Amino acid sequence: MKFEVTILGSSSATPIFNRNPTAQVLNINEKLYLVDCAEGTQQQMLRFDVKASRIDYIFISHLHGDHYLGLVGLLSSMHLNGRKKALKIFGPAPLKEIIDLQLKYSETTLNYPLEYVFTDATVKGVILENQDVYVETIPLDHRIPCTGFLFRQKKRLNKLIKERIEELAIPVQYYPAIKKGNDYEAPDGTIYKNDTLTIAAEQPRSYAYVSDTLYTEKYLQQITNATLLYHEATFLHDMLDRANQTHHTTALQAGEVAVRVNADKLIIGHFSARYKTLNELLDEAKNVFPNTELAVEGKTFVISE
Amino acid sequence: MKFEVTILGSSSATPIFNRNPTAQVLNINEKLYLVDCAEGTQQQMLRFDVKASRIDYIFISHLHGDHYLGLVGLLSSMHLNGRKKALKIFGPAPLKEIIDLQLKYSETTLNYPLEYVFTDATVKGVILENQDVYVETIPLDHRIPCTGFLFRQKKRLNKLIKERIEELAIPVQYYPAIKKGNDYEAPDGTIYKNDTLTIAAEQPRSYAYVSDTLYTEKYLQQITNATLLYHEATFLHDMLDRANQTHHTTALQAGEVAVRVNADKLIIGHFSARYKTLNELLDEAKNVFPNTELAVEGKTFVISE
Repeated sequence: MKFEVTILGSSSATPIFNRNPTAQVLNINEKLYLVDCAEGTQQQMLRFDVKASRIDYIFISHLHGDHYLGLVGLLSSMHLNGRKKALKIFGPAPLKEIIDLQLKYSETTLNYPLEYVFTDATVKGVILENQDVYVETIPLDHRIPCTGFLFRQKKRLNKLIKERIEELAIPVQYYPAIKKGNDYEAPDGTIYKNDTLTIAAEQPRSYAYVSDTLYTEKYLQQITNATLLYHEATFLHDMLDRANQTHHTTALQAGEVAVRVNADKLIIGHFSARYKTLNELLDEAKNVFPNTELAVEGKTFVISE
Repeated sequence: MKFEVTILGSSSATPIFNRNPTAQVLNINEKLYLVDCAEGTQQQMLRFDVKASRIDYIFISHLHGDHYLGLVGLLSSMHLNGRKKALKIFGPAPLKEIIDLQLKYSETTLNYPLEYVFTDATVKGVILENQDVYVETIPLDHRIPCTGFLFRQKKRLNKLIKERIEELAIPVQYYPAIKKGNDYEAPDGTIYKNDTLTIAAEQPRSYAYVSDTLYTEKYLQQITNATLLYHEATFLHDMLDRANQTHHTTALQAGEVAVRVNADKLIIGHFSARYKTLNELLDEAKNVFPNTELAVEGKTFVISE
């Protein structure tokens, strides 16, 4: 199953040095999930050939402009481009008030339904479950209510070993139970162990999106063993005071989070406008957690087993 | 006196084909005036090296997203970049409600004063007068309240012919009256005609920004003799029904407006997403009014005598 994320914006606060503020798009089994939607996200989608019509879910971490100001424009373009199917938006409740006000004054009635799921930044909770994933909010510690999002692939069924099943002439009604991991008892009483009948399904993968936050204990347990961890790294560690004051994280701290939660891989992003080049941020994180990459716009990271 | 306009966005409705929705910046005597501010305007300003810190006035024609969705992001960036001086915003009254709501939920108090002048799309009126220009609203006929903006350079004083003034030993207290066009009566009763004492000042130039509108009579008289006319030309004339239905103008009609108001030059913009290339729109307008150019993003047009 495809499970990958493409970076659409990597800047914090303001666009600068050809970096756009935060947005990412996940492709999970050929469905697109947009995560944050800064100003210019729809332009970035055109640039990187991400089809807005394929997005069914949009997640907004918090209501700082660099995470959501592209949303109304995107909704409007979807409307103008003939969208009919429902769009689900996950985010803080006031987002609806903001969108409604802007639609009201532009006298626009969208041609498709918007369905809202309001997030609560004080508790973790599953906000979406479909055939492919669970999505949970990750309560973070920012200046205003803010959540990250944890995408956990569902456990998939084992695959039957076709030749073995045919050889034993197992009736089809047993297949679902065997796929789930059960053994098979033949009419003669022989027990065939599940691992002789199936190939184990891939381990469920996960993507943890840790948006703007102070580095605290509170979200670590929840993202343990994340296959891919995106963590903000607004500043170098020599700006720790500034990071604490603005409730952001340093690159070194992002590396520490990756170590502590035992992530397979780390992407850092949300870079401050003070950094024209990003090598120092990358080096700082890699010193702590070697398997780190920069959130480069247009780059796709596969969340692999 | 410098008087020029740089195109930052030329698309209607949605960004497409590397065209951004509407925004322009006027440089009048080294002060910047932003006219409309679609999503991505601040990115376009970075691209074309337009300094946000030099903008003192922002004009918003109407509350369709393709004309103002970049405003809150720009205001926020000005704040983050340390702006202290006041910014004047001219636009429909609900704009303040929209901005206030977004600042409230991002818990942002801007470090500089925003001063609003609310426009009334039913009457023309001077909304700004400073040492360089008058700015008038142009009531237009769009689906929601919408104004254009007419920038009229102030009449400048005549220049004294220094040698002639010295030769006649005209006392300095007479200079202001002579600069304004008065004749001079010498102590011996001789009358010296003004045109022998001064060089006429340049003729006041004007820039008419005709945003989204149906082609009607109502705004023509006001923009008569515009030095430079920007007029929307969303469609080719074979789409006239669609233009009428959506309260827009065709390229042919934009050319007709330029002829009827005796403009020196026409720029057409606000191109529909249906046109990947723009040659046909340009040709259609030029057939009616030859001195027409396309609103090309990044291009600066001098409003010349």
